[in-house]
Amino acid sequence: MAIEIERKFLVKNEQYKNDASEQVRITQGYLNSAPERTVRVRTKGNKGYLTVKGISSESGASRYEWEKEIPLDEARALLALCEPGMIDKTRYLVPQGKHTFEVDEFYGENQGLVVAEVELTNENESFDKPLWLAQEVTGQTRYYNSVLMRRPYASWE
Amino acid sequence: MAIEIERKFLVKNEQYKNDASEQVRITQGYLNSAPERTVRVRTKGNKGYLTVKGISSESGASRYEWEKEIPLDEARALLALCEPGMIDKTRYLVPQGKHTFEVDEFYGENQGLVVAEVELTNENESFDKPLWLAQEVTGQTRYYNSVLMRRPYASWE
Repeated sequence: MAIEIERKFLVKNEQYKNDASEQVRITQGYLNSAPERTVRVRTKGNKGYLTVKGISSESGASRYEWEKEIPLDEARALLALCEPGMIDKTRYLVPQGKHTFEVDEFYGENQGLVVAEVELTNENESFDKPLWLAQEVTGQTRYYNSVLMRRPYASWE
Repeated sequence: MAIEIERKFLVKNEQYKNDASEQVRITQGYLNSAPERTVRVRTKGNKGYLTVKGISSESGASRYEWEKEIPLDEARALLALCEPGMIDKTRYLVPQGKHTFEVDEFYGENQGLVVAEVELTNENESFDKPLWLAQEVTGQTRYYNSVLMRRPYASWE
């Protein structure tokens, strides 16, 4: 159980794809999408994961997180038990100074949405902002994957 | 992921305690108590477990079940994220013929409730009924631990 500190941004253009060191396809669903006790099932490439996240801090940047790798076939079986809706995206890892941005390009009902996250050791840690970074959306719950599943990007005003 | 087939009974008297081969204290909470996707966190003696159960079959005797052992300290941290309410009980293992009954004696808000379960390989498998066994309650959702947490025995009419 660790505390996860992340800042989240929108993205201006596709330059991040040129800067990416690797990419992986991710599908995920939720056994509970409530923010107080999110239970996420994920396949990431040929690996499976089960992740539990607790309530956010007031700023929205810190969350308790617990994660276990599980066999891919078990992850797929658990996905079948998940709440309706599924997140499908490609994650690009983009090194920038001493940090690595995770940029998620969404598909399906969330097509058109691209979100960049950077993990920090404390909420005030500084980091290099790449040129393709747009406005910050840290703590805005509509960008949570668990919320995008129920209220996808295509349905936004 | 296995299918769990269990039949559940009430208990007439405390004779099962004399017949028990072992006993262990169990505390558990739920990251999701919905029957379609129950996510249970359990400490059992000095071990921790995370368990996911799917929807029941029509008879109530079969349920998909997935379980992983996890470190005790991680189980305790996850218990803190669970829905309000907690199940606290002692489980007695009681051998009977070729089966072993699990008899749960509940504490706290469920004090006075004792439930015996036997696991079968199919729904029609026969088994020896011990003399202390009372009426069958298989499939009655009010005896689910996930429901007892929200509507404990002490609150029943």
